[in-house]
Amino acid sequence: MKTSEADLIGKLRRAASHSQIGNGMALGIGDDAALFAPRRGYQTILSCDWFLEGTHFLRDKHPADAVGWKCLARALSDIAAMGGEPRCFLLSLALPAAGRWLDRFLGGLSRAARGFQCPLAGGDTTRRREISMNLTVVGEVRSGRAILRSGARAGDIIYVSGRLGEADLGLRRLRDAGRVSKKDAALKKHLYPRPRLELGQWLAKQRLASAMMDLSDGLSSDLPRLCAASGIGARIEAAKIPAVKIAAKQDPTGTEARDLALNGGDDYELLFTVPPSKARRMPRSFEGTALTAIGIINGGRSLKLVDLNGHEQPLRSRGWDPFRG
Amino acid sequence: MKTSEADLIGKLRRAASHSQIGNGMALGIGDDAALFAPRRGYQTILSCDWFLEGTHFLRDKHPADAVGWKCLARALSDIAAMGGEPRCFLLSLALPAAGRWLDRFLGGLSRAARGFQCPLAGGDTTRRREISMNLTVVGEVRSGRAILRSGARAGDIIYVSGRLGEADLGLRRLRDAGRVSKKDAALKKHLYPRPRLELGQWLAKQRLASAMMDLSDGLSSDLPRLCAASGIGARIEAAKIPAVKIAAKQDPTGTEARDLALNGGDDYELLFTVPPSKARRMPRSFEGTALTAIGIINGGRSLKLVDLNGHEQPLRSRGWDPFRG
Repeated sequence: MKTSEADLIGKLRRAASHSQIGNGMALGIGDDAALFAPRRGYQTILSCDWFLEGTHFLRDKHPADAVGWKCLARALSDIAAMGGEPRCFLLSLALPAAGRWLDRFLGGLSRAARGFQCPLAGGDTTRRREISMNLTVVGEVRSGRAILRSGARAGDIIYVSGRLGEADLGLRRLRDAGRVSKKDAALKKHLYPRPRLELGQWLAKQRLASAMMDLSDGLSSDLPRLCAASGIGARIEAAKIPAVKIAAKQDPTGTEARDLALNGGDDYELLFTVPPSKARRMPRSFEGTALTAIGIINGGRSLKLVDLNGHEQPLRSRGWDPFRG
Repeated sequence: MKTSEADLIGKLRRAASHSQIGNGMALGIGDDAALFAPRRGYQTILSCDWFLEGTHFLRDKHPADAVGWKCLARALSDIAAMGGEPRCFLLSLALPAAGRWLDRFLGGLSRAARGFQCPLAGGDTTRRREISMNLTVVGEVRSGRAILRSGARAGDIIYVSGRLGEADLGLRRLRDAGRVSKKDAALKKHLYPRPRLELGQWLAKQRLASAMMDLSDGLSSDLPRLCAASGIGARIEAAKIPAVKIAAKQDPTGTEARDLALNGGDDYELLFTVPPSKARRMPRSFEGTALTAIGIINGGRSLKLVDLNGHEQPLRSRGWDPFRG
């Protein structure tokens, strides 16, 4: 039996009805467009993200429900990075046919939509041999309170949330091993990331962070972007970067862990800067997530990494760039 | 020389700066997300659309600048269909490399962005063998004034704007002929459609239309969607449908023109219903575009087409469905 576009839209509508939590939506799926009622005194945050088979996930390695969860979770990381709250999302889906993969995908997606209080509001569907999707997430932040990439100043302290490199380790384990335990923490972080929404909102509300972005391509690639947007430089210390934990017999020198922490992508932790005058108000953790100072912003444009021997070297971007292949 | 993601984003940023017309954007390209300042008393309209090589355009047949123009124009047709005004858009672009094709594409896109007063506010880029894009358009409409698909009632008169089937004829000519004159009206409508934004806004402001949608897949496929959303049926007359003009020697019986008008896609004209009490206020044209009554909404759920001999037959959906291939 062939699937029609109407069948597929019906499935999406049912999935949406599970995630409809009345988040300011006046009209959802089924019309030409979605209608959204903005709150007074707030700005609207808009971001879109590709999630493509072969590039961002592998159909034979990644469970369909994890693809569903992750496509929304990682898109919402951009809302977290602005200090905003999720309001709704649009899903554009291109796929070969609407079979069991789609059902499981929608299961994971609906779970994420409920978990992050972000209902599906609309989208577009078409047929394609390879599975492609694009998500547009909509959030809100009090006017003037969004934390931009461009606000870092010389002397600000550079922080990261969580442990870096876990998600990339999870990806390596998934690729290499025949079977990986679902309880493996690194794998879990790779398959089911949790955007740091509450942390981002708290930093915005407390006006603690001068600049912020999320870590999606790896610290060594993302920090230069924040610095470029702010027109400043940075000096970070390898010894301070909170790295993924790997058993000593697998990584006796700790080299792999440090490499993953510096260059591994997909962590969806927050990278932010705090003016020195506010640093004493920074807790060591927020709701169980470590907040770690890893370096300092400086006035020049240079990006330095202090290695474990105390030697300063240029920070090289070795994170993920789709165009570098 | 390889292209980096940063190079591509630089090109997009330059294209955006040509289209930045201060349309309520607080922050555009270069941060984690775009920030948009909604107007008080308005709802936000959100819609997204695929535009894929092989499905929606052919790289060797469609000029790159037409691809750029059309991807935005057709997405904005969804804003027109709600009676809204465009505010900004996000572009997700996946392509093999950023060469001359991209420059010409961005030329057409920038021209459309200026023409429709809809600046580029953000997006996402990645590498892909086939060119894929997804556009999210953001519009606004006075709260409560959006024209939905669901408002049609028995007795309402069914209207369409313009002539139907022109764009599909343009596509056929582009496919079949080695060379087509750029002045060919059908080809122009296929390559450079103009969403009926002013008409949609006028109908919303005058509160004339009870239901509306845009014609993207063909009248025979789109009218049933409006009827399903409104829970009603319809009866249209083939003789009244304003069809594309084809020279008599190419289409002596007029069969091709009528088939194109009924089933041809990509016209981006508006399909709307007007309560009989308001029909006398309907002009025959709006800013040079014909407005034609083609039938009537009825209380049942049946969809009927009255053929040229006056015989009533079921209206069969023979427009475009990507999943029917």
